[in-house]
Amino acid sequence: MKKSVIIVAGGKGLRMGSELPKQFLPIGGKPVLMHTLEVFRKYDASLQIILVLPKEQQGFWRQLCEEHGFDVEHLIADGGGTRFHSVKNGLALVREPGLVGVHDGVRPFVSVEVIQRCYDLAEEQKAVIPVVDVVETLRHLTDDGSETVSRNDYKLVQTPQVFETELLKRAYAQEFTPFFTDDASVVEAMGIPVYLAEGNRENIKITTPFDLKVGSALL
Amino acid sequence: MKKSVIIVAGGKGLRMGSELPKQFLPIGGKPVLMHTLEVFRKYDASLQIILVLPKEQQGFWRQLCEEHGFDVEHLIADGGGTRFHSVKNGLALVREPGLVGVHDGVRPFVSVEVIQRCYDLAEEQKAVIPVVDVVETLRHLTDDGSETVSRNDYKLVQTPQVFETELLKRAYAQEFTPFFTDDASVVEAMGIPVYLAEGNRENIKITTPFDLKVGSALL
Repeated sequence: MKKSVIIVAGGKGLRMGSELPKQFLPIGGKPVLMHTLEVFRKYDASLQIILVLPKEQQGFWRQLCEEHGFDVEHLIADGGGTRFHSVKNGLALVREPGLVGVHDGVRPFVSVEVIQRCYDLAEEQKAVIPVVDVVETLRHLTDDGSETVSRNDYKLVQTPQVFETELLKRAYAQEFTPFFTDDASVVEAMGIPVYLAEGNRENIKITTPFDLKVGSALL
Repeated sequence: MKKSVIIVAGGKGLRMGSELPKQFLPIGGKPVLMHTLEVFRKYDASLQIILVLPKEQQGFWRQLCEEHGFDVEHLIADGGGTRFHSVKNGLALVREPGLVGVHDGVRPFVSVEVIQRCYDLAEEQKAVIPVVDVVETLRHLTDDGSETVSRNDYKLVQTPQVFETELLKRAYAQEFTPFFTDDASVVEAMGIPVYLAEGNRENIKITTPFDLKVGSALL
């Protein structure tokens, strides 16, 4: 079965207080994004890897790859105005039926086990997302204040979110709405349920200087 | 105004896969709990610090304090069967009106600024808790599956939760229910609203080996 992954790296880096978009920030001397691609290559040597990058960053990325002697084979698609449009552009490069994952470029610490689990389960379940428990007390903001809710009734969602390719293509043929926060929500808008798999807690999103510190420790 | 803090350390350490309860695990060569007490002492030299520890750990703690030459002055109260009962035991040692905070012993990375903010706001607001944004996509588990919810409608709750002392004493005079997940929920059970203050993201709870790695990096 043909397997692909779309790795989305649209960050402009503003939240980091840095000129460099967050996907290029170094962890252990190497850009975040290279770590991410390497985990997926480790999972499967024949996986089709599609990297979605803003057009204006692609030259810089190629230069980085050369400097680091980075040899993980991948295609590049143009980033869009929103995450939805970026994924759609990546999806256009997946030409065979099979399974396709969508992963955040700034999540370099996903484990090979979690990737494997999501793809394996997607063969049966069609739509699989990795989730982890909420560790802290959770509050729900209401019109007139806030209330404690049971954290056991909630899960934090990670990536890769893995789908039957044809299903995801149909989902992304829908008209965009701002309620599409992740790929699962796009698929669910068609009335298709998603299956929750166990994620790994280290699979954090590198979005702040704090995360970068944590990331360097994890390496 | 008299200010106190109750630092609750009831961990048996099971989740850590370690014999040592998590509050005693070393970060940067020093038990987690000592870091926690030090931040509060740094916030206010005259703050009354009450440490709640299971009876069977108190001898070990005193020994640790001696070994480390730990000189942050504090009282010790006995841990109870639940967090609720532990806080109640600590609260019994607060004898003057004023403000009292309740803090998790395994949160050594609370910032002095956040402590200050919560106590300052509590003078007006009576009940203040620090919260941070939910960074990941959040799913709500339902009877027949799960659904995406807007993460902007939720906050993750940290400590110290700071209250007018008399208010917290009245709250803890209520009968225990398992819905009391934190001090805010105990106070809210009396119909008193809590005020949300901005927390600091580094203020993580050290509960797994992963957190310990992160903690060592933060130090």
